[in-house]
Amino acid sequence: MKIALAQINPTVGALDNNSQNIEGIIQDYSPKCDLIVFPEMCLTGYPPQDLLMETAFIAKTAEALKNIAAKVQETPVILGTIRQVEDKLFNTAAVLQNGEVIVCRDKTHLPTYDVFDEARYFVSADSRMPIELRVHGKSVKLGIEICEDLWDKDYETKVSRELVHAGAEILINISASPFHLNRLDERLDIIKDKSIDLKCYFIYCNLVGGQDELVFDGQSCVVSPSGDLVSLSPAFREDIQIMDIENCESVNRPKFSEEKQIFHALSLGVQDYFVKTGHKKAVLGVSGGIDSALTAVIASDALGSENVLGISMPSIYSSDHSIKDAKALAENLGIDFQIIQIKKINEQMLEDLSPVLNGSQGGLAEENLQARIRGNILMAAANKQGALLLNTGNKTETALGYCTMYGDMAGALAVISDLNKSQVYAVSRWINEDAGEEVIPYSSITKPPSAELKPGQVDPFDYDVVSPLVDILITEPERAHELVDEGYTLELIEDMMKKVRLAEYKRRQAPPGIRISPKAFGMGRKYPIINQFEA
Amino acid sequence: MKIALAQINPTVGALDNNSQNIEGIIQDYSPKCDLIVFPEMCLTGYPPQDLLMETAFIAKTAEALKNIAAKVQETPVILGTIRQVEDKLFNTAAVLQNGEVIVCRDKTHLPTYDVFDEARYFVSADSRMPIELRVHGKSVKLGIEICEDLWDKDYETKVSRELVHAGAEILINISASPFHLNRLDERLDIIKDKSIDLKCYFIYCNLVGGQDELVFDGQSCVVSPSGDLVSLSPAFREDIQIMDIENCESVNRPKFSEEKQIFHALSLGVQDYFVKTGHKKAVLGVSGGIDSALTAVIASDALGSENVLGISMPSIYSSDHSIKDAKALAENLGIDFQIIQIKKINEQMLEDLSPVLNGSQGGLAEENLQARIRGNILMAAANKQGALLLNTGNKTETALGYCTMYGDMAGALAVISDLNKSQVYAVSRWINEDAGEEVIPYSSITKPPSAELKPGQVDPFDYDVVSPLVDILITEPERAHELVDEGYTLELIEDMMKKVRLAEYKRRQAPPGIRISPKAFGMGRKYPIINQFEA
Repeated sequence: MKIALAQINPTVGALDNNSQNIEGIIQDYSPKCDLIVFPEMCLTGYPPQDLLMETAFIAKTAEALKNIAAKVQETPVILGTIRQVEDKLFNTAAVLQNGEVIVCRDKTHLPTYDVFDEARYFVSADSRMPIELRVHGKSVKLGIEICEDLWDKDYETKVSRELVHAGAEILINISASPFHLNRLDERLDIIKDKSIDLKCYFIYCNLVGGQDELVFDGQSCVVSPSGDLVSLSPAFREDIQIMDIENCESVNRPKFSEEKQIFHALSLGVQDYFVKTGHKKAVLGVSGGIDSALTAVIASDALGSENVLGISMPSIYSSDHSIKDAKALAENLGIDFQIIQIKKINEQMLEDLSPVLNGSQGGLAEENLQARIRGNILMAAANKQGALLLNTGNKTETALGYCTMYGDMAGALAVISDLNKSQVYAVSRWINEDAGEEVIPYSSITKPPSAELKPGQVDPFDYDVVSPLVDILITEPERAHELVDEGYTLELIEDMMKKVRLAEYKRRQAPPGIRISPKAFGMGRKYPIINQFEA
Repeated sequence: MKIALAQINPTVGALDNNSQNIEGIIQDYSPKCDLIVFPEMCLTGYPPQDLLMETAFIAKTAEALKNIAAKVQETPVILGTIRQVEDKLFNTAAVLQNGEVIVCRDKTHLPTYDVFDEARYFVSADSRMPIELRVHGKSVKLGIEICEDLWDKDYETKVSRELVHAGAEILINISASPFHLNRLDERLDIIKDKSIDLKCYFIYCNLVGGQDELVFDGQSCVVSPSGDLVSLSPAFREDIQIMDIENCESVNRPKFSEEKQIFHALSLGVQDYFVKTGHKKAVLGVSGGIDSALTAVIASDALGSENVLGISMPSIYSSDHSIKDAKALAENLGIDFQIIQIKKINEQMLEDLSPVLNGSQGGLAEENLQARIRGNILMAAANKQGALLLNTGNKTETALGYCTMYGDMAGALAVISDLNKSQVYAVSRWINEDAGEEVIPYSSITKPPSAELKPGQVDPFDYDVVSPLVDILITEPERAHELVDEGYTLELIEDMMKKVRLAEYKRRQAPPGIRISPKAFGMGRKYPIINQFEA
């Protein structure tokens, strides 16, 4: 039996374009295989969020499904979409054959945690039964499940097992499973366990592409009843694999470094954000520091260096090497580069603002003032060129609030906001190693990080200590007080916890950031601003 | 039987302070009544969002509950909190008596729509039974339910009915029910229906106070078995009423104008945002226009005029009357007032930005530049004084994207962002009428609205047409194409729908705004930025 895994990259809401893409694949691949499998909700794109509450959206999706079905001939198609029955909405796998939707199988487990919100929209399947399909003269019993149905550890209903016990010979999981670091290993482990335990082939078809904060990595796969990986689609791009499950050999599970995973995830996230919102050009501030350097490299990879403009905005506190490093980076990448001094603007602002600055000359207000002048310059450049501003902040500073609202926090998309400072360094070093040359200037990697907003300023954190600590506080807050045993002082831990809590009001207005960790700021972490809890 | 309705204003996460407040009330009121009822989750504050995923938060709440229970004597107390049983978390009503938590009743219906997210945190009650309580020698059967359990129209389980059928003599609902316009009438209608239908007293105890975007209005009440309203606590403030249900008279259902409801809701929302985040002073831009004028009045009411600073920032396009109106407003309110010219700063920016402005002198980039200079000035003033910047944008312009990120969209809190432009005018007129004098300058109300960012500019919308239209598109998008029958042109409808969709990226970075409608932007409306759906 030959199964085509259509790992596609749809756009949320683009029903016409998504349909066209799906129909093209059906037309091309139907003659070559016995079954075509598409990912979860690939007709609507995932997640469509509150579009799922619009009657027009539901109706037009149903119409689009019917039109696709009309073009399906003998080779059956499994396609992820939605279906409404009376006032109930299901996340469903539609099975299409001979011009019709012949049956649907609904999702049982609706993830409602982290970035997932499915209980807001959907109701659970009320039963789970295999379907019997006639494929090119032969009959086969398929157990169809959807994404979370695989991850059944914390649920009472074990969907995969129920399906096999009810006669399914092959399990098919259609997913829209977003990437985070080393997610592939977690997936392959659980699929392997299920295949061995239930003694059947496991077909897993995942979405690919960027959607706001999320990146879907694809990496669709097939695992044999003995637990061997026999097919693995590529990461971070559209791909269609035909798998003959009666005639296959095992393949090695690949081992990608974390730095490589991060780089390609972020590049796709940037690329799709631009393509899917109809933009081409990016602007970013390049300070000579490591964060903006890494962001510029990712942007160049995603958009082409000809579409990237880096602007250096030295203040009176900026060192010569800052401008030099920024310029070297731009030259290495071949991106456009401008230098705009902020000295005179800042002086004029300080003069005209004297009635509200109370005659004082230094302090946080004056530092932020400069950061916001830079934000304004960058937005003006972006507005004038129809470009999007890329934000260059990292997760550690975003966590601690070491950033200025409307200043360095400005931007349409935060490219590296889910990377802690240590990861920023690691990926930067990997880029140079991978390229075999200095893409990011070595001095950007080796010099101490600084916002250069006052004389001799360097970032007030030892990032080697603080980066991993802050990550733990965000991902596993329950471990906070155990961390004393791991060598952190109680004072530092409590100070960091407080900073994370108090910076919530800043993050509420932060640009969407591309998620690469299991717990990113943004849609998956919902904390109140008014919050007086001290753990 | 005398029941005390303790309509309190807790702070999310402030377990110690909330406990103290609750214990003080228990001490004071226990001798005077037979039962004290507190609102839903008033020990934790509502909604605590992802604090509910922290083990320390759950443990400390449990400890706080035990400490409160230890101080309860014979007079029983019903208190809204959370409880964990193995890995399940419940939203619960704890019943305290004689030093102990004697029983808990869990919430059945977990709202997961609009601003509510309860399926993310809680599991539903698995059973519903009345409790039998001995109160000062007598025995009474109480049916305890929580908030959404009352609103059972779309749920199969009818909690109130089940409880009465199982023997409950009195229904008690503890709520954290946020305000929106005319919400009181909706509540009293359904409570009246339930009381008459089930032939019992209905005791309803609601939270009061502001929490980020939400304002809880209180207005706790008691309705008799004949459907008469016999007690109604005040709106928008803490209050404790003792109700003797064997000895009560009906009271009139009050009728507050929408303008009055809005004004008091927003004033409490502002006040609590400041008090609960530890701030005192506010800064805002006062342009002479109606939006900033209304915001200034609300801020003065909430914080005291001595804590409000209005800054007028005329550009070369600003008319004389703008400054005059802004000044008159400040004088009427008695707030601090400063004028800061942006002309020179703007000129300096245009000069230094010439490499990225391509030599052009006018256009959106240049308009936004001025708006962002103003944002920077306001933030500098706020930073210097330890004040919070109030945002003055309204819902119509926020919907359509007629606003500048990091410019007029800056601010810690958006005061009137859930008021359409027509409501802004209506509340402004009501303020002057209510005061019997010109608080908001009449010319701010009568002149055409303008951003004054280019010569002779006025807002490009007929707000009388567009304000209600945009409201419908947000609240009831399914009606979009019917609106042609109501006199709107298809072209206008589709243009407005497109503008709302394309402005999503701006709103994602907007300050939290106080919700006064059933569908506000913010936590209750989750739309993707990448969204190509055209209805």
